[in-house]
Amino acid sequence: MSSIEVRAEAIPNIPFQERPADCADVLYRYSENPVVPARAIRASTYIHNSAVIAHEGAFRGVFRIDNRSRRMQLHAGRSEDGLKWKLDEEPIRFRCDDPEIGRFTYGYDPRLVRIEGRTYVMWCNGYHGPTIGLGYTDDFQTYHQLENALLPFNRNGVLFPRRFRGDYLLLSRPSDNGHTPFGEIYLSHSPDLVHWGRHRHVMAPIREENGWQSTKIGAGPAPIETSEGFLLIYHGVNTTCNGFVYSAGAVLLDLEQPWKVIARSDPYLLTPSTLYECVGNVPNVVFPCGALVDGPTGKLALYYGSADTVVSVAFGYVQDIVRFVLDNRVR
Amino acid sequence: MSSIEVRAEAIPNIPFQERPADCADVLYRYSENPVVPARAIRASTYIHNSAVIAHEGAFRGVFRIDNRSRRMQLHAGRSEDGLKWKLDEEPIRFRCDDPEIGRFTYGYDPRLVRIEGRTYVMWCNGYHGPTIGLGYTDDFQTYHQLENALLPFNRNGVLFPRRFRGDYLLLSRPSDNGHTPFGEIYLSHSPDLVHWGRHRHVMAPIREENGWQSTKIGAGPAPIETSEGFLLIYHGVNTTCNGFVYSAGAVLLDLEQPWKVIARSDPYLLTPSTLYECVGNVPNVVFPCGALVDGPTGKLALYYGSADTVVSVAFGYVQDIVRFVLDNRVR
Amino acid sequence: MSSIEVRAEAIPNIPFQERPADCADVLYRYSENPVVPARAIRASTYIHNSAVIAHEGAFRGVFRIDNRSRRMQLHAGRSEDGLKWKLDEEPIRFRCDDPEIGRFTYGYDPRLVRIEGRTYVMWCNGYHGPTIGLGYTDDFQTYHQLENALLPFNRNGVLFPRRFRGDYLLLSRPSDNGHTPFGEIYLSHSPDLVHWGRHRHVMAPIREENGWQSTKIGAGPAPIETSEGFLLIYHGVNTTCNGFVYSAGAVLLDLEQPWKVIARSDPYLLTPSTLYECVGNVPNVVFPCGALVDGPTGKLALYYGSADTVVSVAFGYVQDIVRFVLDNRVR
Amino acid sequence: MSSIEVRAEAIPNIPFQERPADCADVLYRYSENPVVPARAIRASTYIHNSAVIAHEGAFRGVFRIDNRSRRMQLHAGRSEDGLKWKLDEEPIRFRCDDPEIGRFTYGYDPRLVRIEGRTYVMWCNGYHGPTIGLGYTDDFQTYHQLENALLPFNRNGVLFPRRFRGDYLLLSRPSDNGHTPFGEIYLSHSPDLVHWGRHRHVMAPIREENGWQSTKIGAGPAPIETSEGFLLIYHGVNTTCNGFVYSAGAVLLDLEQPWKVIARSDPYLLTPSTLYECVGNVPNVVFPCGALVDGPTGKLALYYGSADTVVSVAFGYVQDIVRFVLDNRVR
Amino acid sequence: MSSIEVRAEAIPNIPFQERPADCADVLYRYSENPVVPARAIRASTYIHNSAVIAHEGAFRGVFRIDNRSRRMQLHAGRSEDGLKWKLDEEPIRFRCDDPEIGRFTYGYDPRLVRIEGRTYVMWCNGYHGPTIGLGYTDDFQTYHQLENALLPFNRNGVLFPRRFRGDYLLLSRPSDNGHTPFGEIYLSHSPDLVHWGRHRHVMAPIREENGWQSTKIGAGPAPIETSEGFLLIYHGVNTTCNGFVYSAGAVLLDLEQPWKVIARSDPYLLTPSTLYECVGNVPNVVFPCGALVDGPTGKLALYYGSADTVVSVAFGYVQDIVRFVLDNRVR
Amino acid sequence: MSSIEVRAEAIPNIPFQERPADCADVLYRYSENPVVPARAIRASTYIHNSAVIAHEGAFRGVFRIDNRSRRMQLHAGRSEDGLKWKLDEEPIRFRCDDPEIGRFTYGYDPRLVRIEGRTYVMWCNGYHGPTIGLGYTDDFQTYHQLENALLPFNRNGVLFPRRFRGDYLLLSRPSDNGHTPFGEIYLSHSPDLVHWGRHRHVMAPIREENGWQSTKIGAGPAPIETSEGFLLIYHGVNTTCNGFVYSAGAVLLDLEQPWKVIARSDPYLLTPSTLYECVGNVPNVVFPCGALVDGPTGKLALYYGSADTVVSVAFGYVQDIVRFVLDNRVR
Repeated sequence: MSSIEVRAEAIPNIPFQERPADCADVLYRYSENPVVPARAIRASTYIHNSAVIAHEGAFRGVFRIDNRSRRMQLHAGRSEDGLKWKLDEEPIRFRCDDPEIGRFTYGYDPRLVRIEGRTYVMWCNGYHGPTIGLGYTDDFQTYHQLENALLPFNRNGVLFPRRFRGDYLLLSRPSDNGHTPFGEIYLSHSPDLVHWGRHRHVMAPIREENGWQSTKIGAGPAPIETSEGFLLIYHGVNTTCNGFVYSAGAVLLDLEQPWKVIARSDPYLLTPSTLYECVGNVPNVVFPCGALVDGPTGKLALYYGSADTVVSVAFGYVQDIVRFVLDNRVR
Repeated sequence: MSSIEVRAEAIPNIPFQERPADCADVLYRYSENPVVPARAIRASTYIHNSAVIAHEGAFRGVFRIDNRSRRMQLHAGRSEDGLKWKLDEEPIRFRCDDPEIGRFTYGYDPRLVRIEGRTYVMWCNGYHGPTIGLGYTDDFQTYHQLENALLPFNRNGVLFPRRFRGDYLLLSRPSDNGHTPFGEIYLSHSPDLVHWGRHRHVMAPIREENGWQSTKIGAGPAPIETSEGFLLIYHGVNTTCNGFVYSAGAVLLDLEQPWKVIARSDPYLLTPSTLYECVGNVPNVVFPCGALVDGPTGKLALYYGSADTVVSVAFGYVQDIVRFVLDNRVR
Repeated sequence: MSSIEVRAEAIPNIPFQERPADCADVLYRYSENPVVPARAIRASTYIHNSAVIAHEGAFRGVFRIDNRSRRMQLHAGRSEDGLKWKLDEEPIRFRCDDPEIGRFTYGYDPRLVRIEGRTYVMWCNGYHGPTIGLGYTDDFQTYHQLENALLPFNRNGVLFPRRFRGDYLLLSRPSDNGHTPFGEIYLSHSPDLVHWGRHRHVMAPIREENGWQSTKIGAGPAPIETSEGFLLIYHGVNTTCNGFVYSAGAVLLDLEQPWKVIARSDPYLLTPSTLYECVGNVPNVVFPCGALVDGPTGKLALYYGSADTVVSVAFGYVQDIVRFVLDNRVR
Repeated sequence: MSSIEVRAEAIPNIPFQERPADCADVLYRYSENPVVPARAIRASTYIHNSAVIAHEGAFRGVFRIDNRSRRMQLHAGRSEDGLKWKLDEEPIRFRCDDPEIGRFTYGYDPRLVRIEGRTYVMWCNGYHGPTIGLGYTDDFQTYHQLENALLPFNRNGVLFPRRFRGDYLLLSRPSDNGHTPFGEIYLSHSPDLVHWGRHRHVMAPIREENGWQSTKIGAGPAPIETSEGFLLIYHGVNTTCNGFVYSAGAVLLDLEQPWKVIARSDPYLLTPSTLYECVGNVPNVVFPCGALVDGPTGKLALYYGSADTVVSVAFGYVQDIVRFVLDNRVR
Repeated sequence: MSSIEVRAEAIPNIPFQERPADCADVLYRYSENPVVPARAIRASTYIHNSAVIAHEGAFRGVFRIDNRSRRMQLHAGRSEDGLKWKLDEEPIRFRCDDPEIGRFTYGYDPRLVRIEGRTYVMWCNGYHGPTIGLGYTDDFQTYHQLENALLPFNRNGVLFPRRFRGDYLLLSRPSDNGHTPFGEIYLSHSPDLVHWGRHRHVMAPIREENGWQSTKIGAGPAPIETSEGFLLIYHGVNTTCNGFVYSAGAVLLDLEQPWKVIARSDPYLLTPSTLYECVGNVPNVVFPCGALVDGPTGKLALYYGSADTVVSVAFGYVQDIVRFVLDNRVR
Repeated sequence: MSSIEVRAEAIPNIPFQERPADCADVLYRYSENPVVPARAIRASTYIHNSAVIAHEGAFRGVFRIDNRSRRMQLHAGRSEDGLKWKLDEEPIRFRCDDPEIGRFTYGYDPRLVRIEGRTYVMWCNGYHGPTIGLGYTDDFQTYHQLENALLPFNRNGVLFPRRFRGDYLLLSRPSDNGHTPFGEIYLSHSPDLVHWGRHRHVMAPIREENGWQSTKIGAGPAPIETSEGFLLIYHGVNTTCNGFVYSAGAVLLDLEQPWKVIARSDPYLLTPSTLYECVGNVPNVVFPCGALVDGPTGKLALYYGSADTVVSVAFGYVQDIVRFVLDNRVR
């Protein structure tokens, strides 16, 4: 499609739709949204901010489920086509060496990334407040929990899809213990996925009247490597007189020093506009947590929670988004 | 249906639907909700948190109406089948011995209960702030107002349907003078419906991340006596980044010491999920205020305000709910 | 229609519908609302609080557009019938003598008024915070920006349609630098549209539990002169547990001392009730900014932002509204 | 001294100083303040808002002690002259019939009053939040605890020194669960000191910029009966940019309907001015809790907590204060 | 003393002390502070933020007095030496043409300036909230009140001591209706002291952790003209966990375009350090409102409220302060 | 003195006073407090929360200085006797490999600890918000800065005085970006002082009405090793209506798993009581940051900031404090 290279494996059966003729947006909604309804299983009240990954010709996911007590749980799911999902009625039970860490209080907003063949789960994990839980699975049957990467209060932890000079890299968004009214993205280094340091500031909200990313921001799915830099899709929050509005945007991070911003999109990519994004448990939320990318074509299927109620999908080409970010960057 | 006894009079013509085949919930929505639209009368902007009672083979109700100045009023209504309601255009004018107490400022969220043949109205009454108003009627023509039971600031006052060792019992929920971000249920005793004392703490919110009853709770309709205890349906509130979410749950209270909790449901019974519950004057509100129970069968018709805009109904069997509470109790 | 005289020019082709048979309201919605959708142009995310004016047999407007970065801009638009609008893709670029004042940061909630043949634009203008921007156009091609009328923080600035003893009169609503939880209307005098003084208090919110105008109020379109006084349609705000609710009401101001209130409507004229008013960027908003009045008949077409998302229209007769205000005045 | 009659028993040895020559105030400080230092006993960190009463020719008191864990306790004390006090190292252990009520969580800001020969203690009692604790003693050895008079959240409960038509009367100040930013005084009736009702509003703060009683008010010592009405000394709170300032003022209540205000002093009687009132645990606090009155002379010794740290005393004549209130009443 | 020219009239008897040997500060406290105690008159509780001016060889002042109801009043005072002051027991009664404007609600924080031989008083004037009151006197007997210069909410209004191209210039600090947590300085123009416009932003707080001027700023006494620019002494506020701390600093404004900053001192000039600045009605306040300058020598006597309780004085040479600002400017 | 062993090196010339005869406290104030006045150097406004360490027979310190711009800086100091201190006029300039980390924004509340012969400095370091800065010096001439240990927002970072199974241990207190109203202590592990993980919760505030440690807590000086466990002196905060009150208490941590609490003192050890603790920049603060311990005798000299204004010292025996904690532990 162009000279922008998308460094991702091939997913020939990636779910996808081409852009409708009357649409000028680089990221556009699936015509049959939402793909996972609020009550897809008996145990769920809402199913929304969730992550997916390709696996052996099909798709796997870790889903945020607010159960019948509205308690936040992580459930596994699988799909042949990435659009029709079958979710487990029972939450994932992580195996953990240390019972204090392994005692599951709550978990939400999972992300998935494959590094050196192993699939890692990151989520917001309750340990005396929200922090970044880490785990992995090799077979999507057994899930292992590692140490929490960071201290509370933190949310939106996302690993890069490869190591840098031996180090794992983790994006995160330090928070407070409530509905945090601030939030900036940082990057941390680790040699072993247990100890983290060399923390670097990546980017802050853009303070301006009514701006879509003026209150706080947080990483979405794992960064997508391209020849122009790592493409990170992230959420930005605006505060109206009636609460938060969550939109999605994108930024290109440096391939060598990925805490450095190359270009950041001034416009959003997706903002609440449909009934399923504007109405529900938390109105006006578009919250991207998962992404499938087909390297050869650059096709992107972005999974995002809608109104904290259902899972929706948007499509686009990574190359188009990279170009959009470069062309519409924040001055 | 089972060995659980429901100690309520018979209402042969109670409005009711059996549970749909695809539904596993013990409390389920009426298929034609809402039953009272926002503008059922000329004087109304919204009609929502309201109470009903069986009366001489038909049904009577006291309705919260936010009028065309959005001022909160109580209007009487009547229905042959409990589903189609005819409401008075004029608000109820209570007769009161003391003009200072009888001066009506505002009234909302009424409840109804019959004790020893007399029908009592309880509501949130404006007297230098919200407090618990009490009144009664013997004929649904003339309404008499008693002294306010408690000091401001209080809401969600509900009488038990019978006396205990001579005393009337009142549940209430002390508040502050705004959109109170806390709230626990207490029980008070009175020999005469005028003086109240021996206040006992009944139960508190359950503080947990995102829990449906984590911010505050308050009694719904008058408790329903069963062989297992008094079944109290109550509302619980969760605080999201975009405001309060009101759900409904249930608790069994001791038959002898009704301020003692036997079992409290960990899951909710009803949480906002439909368009009429999620959209309106106050989005995401399910607020039960009225209940009809047919003793012989245990059929329950629960009337609840939806989105502070309309009145809806849910159905179920009291026995099922009692069993559900016992089986899914808070640990 | 009556002995109330409406002192406005004729607009024979004013958009209008007669009141539906089943409707008792003096102000009623256009059956085809909204008239301007959120994405009427490529540059828009939302289009809502906007102003219109008759011009040479057709209609012109200045529209608030939250662009693809959700930044607030003013765009010009035109219409043959006042219902189908064509908007410019590019925002209005005001000409200004002083570059410090002319540097456009953001602009929103415009109003339009014609005084002595010249069309003035007033808007909430970003200058170290929101304040009252003033401009004018003679041809709807070139727009000139004057000095900001007042210091920040101010919003909802509206000029009267004529001078009083040589002075221009401006209504405004002093604010703070956020989602201001208070707000009263003042009137200021100016001999030259640059210097303003002799500030007079006009009216305050009416503090009462749940009242539609209990939190803050602000002027809507420019006042409409009638034989009974100036009819000012304004918005009032109520604070629920889930945020602000914006309604519209009306007040009659004295013809000689227009900071004096003759009568103020106790009920609202319009409050959020439809899906397009209750769902969107900011749920539950009815925000009138523009009005067309046909003097000979008294027909009124009121343009109001709905849910901070789209532009809607309501119709009525000025005489009916004047009478309604006089008959339903705040005691 | 005048024709104003002070209806109190004689306390010939009441502590007293005449007004200094250079002082024009009707209530003036004891020259040797404070009378009880912060660490009068080993168990104390601070000793402040406390109550006293004459007893068999000497004086008894109940003192608020913030102990070495800063936990709030009530300790008994005695004095021969009302100025040099000896306090118990151990807190008062109330006897109570119901263990749920008698479980002491915390108690603070006690008041004392003698009714029909029995000495009653009222205090802010912790029962799922602050409420009004009631107890009595006949010998200052054994203290009995009654039911909490009211529901939480309430503070500053004070009994009248006699019954009215058989009823006990209680002043109280409904609150919230924190450092309540509002507060009005109410009066409740009880036939038996257990059940309370017929609640009447007495008075509210006076909202004005910087006014000494603009944020909240609360009763001080038990009302003093005079021929002109009940003289109630109360505290009023102002909110500066650095917190609350507590002052003391007075009001005359009707002898027949003591919830009706005859006259309320526009000026304060005492406001923080000395180092021991402006510096300490909570700066800028004058908080009256105790009073001795010698009926025949009208001499008053007012005990007040200073800066939430020590106990101080002020003197004056009841007749002067009554006259001051009548002459300087709020218009 | 140097080549910096101080353009002020001579005040040969200006109160002054030379800098103590052990002091390196350009502005230093009077050794006998405070000069006006809290209860200098019978009517006062506190006397603090006040203004002074030389008059016929002696000194006159307008004093902020919080009276015995803690209501804020303006009282006139006079002094032979500028240190011993005699204040009127009665507040100033301004004469005003318009009774609505002349109705005195409250007034505080006065400033004085002489323009073309007339002495102007500016103060924070209560008119539906705090705004900028303006008045004048020619004889210090009769005081005339003009229109309020600006809309509420505004504070710290200060006129320049001369006209610019015919215009009066006014500094002010827009506020909200409480203990405003923000505040920037603006300049407005007027041809007639009634109508104000051409508003220009002068300067904002400097946001940095713990900075003395990080929360808000406001003009102090009228600007002092020098050859290097107008020297404006202003207050800056820092927010600690225990409230606001008020310090004093200085800025040089351009002689031609006095809304442009030439240099602004990075360090403060005076910050709360003494007992009379740290303890009182509002702890930790240094609030300059008045200044005397002797042109020939450059001697400055700065009058500042201390702890919102008393009036204090600091001394220095204008030339030293100008040089200090130039040498220690904010980068 | 007893069988409790204090595992610290000998400091024969430790500053010390024996307990006064009339004092029963295990920790008692130095009779000549404060030891460092607010303006000990020309550059200082306040000098308070500071750390000290023995060095070659004398004493060294790192002092928090709020400079003449009230900006927070770290200055080195030295003393022969630990009581008379000489401080550098210039702040410490840390050497750092990475300029982004080494750019000093602000630093405050330093601690010092010696591990394996090297002296480490920990402080609250400004890096896009407060976090834990780490550095070291071998000669008190040159100071080296390491990577920030943790992400913002964090404060009160303190290293243990030795390694555990090869790991360094760090206590810290996650915060938000303001005057954090919450705060719990955590422990993190590091093999290299750069990467930190295996985070464990140590202890939380104790929520109770008015409790000295009810709002937040944070580690004080480096833990002191004894035979009974590590003695950690920490600060606890209570919130009154006029702000935070900072006290000091102590806890014993397990020698093997030092995130486990053996005993925690229910009473405080030190709470604001003197004029220099109650009056100043932030009233009512006792904030321990430094400690000297003489191992053979157990003598302790605790350095604490007072009122965020000066440095004070308290004395005691470690054995007494350990015993006090064991005897007065939180149940």
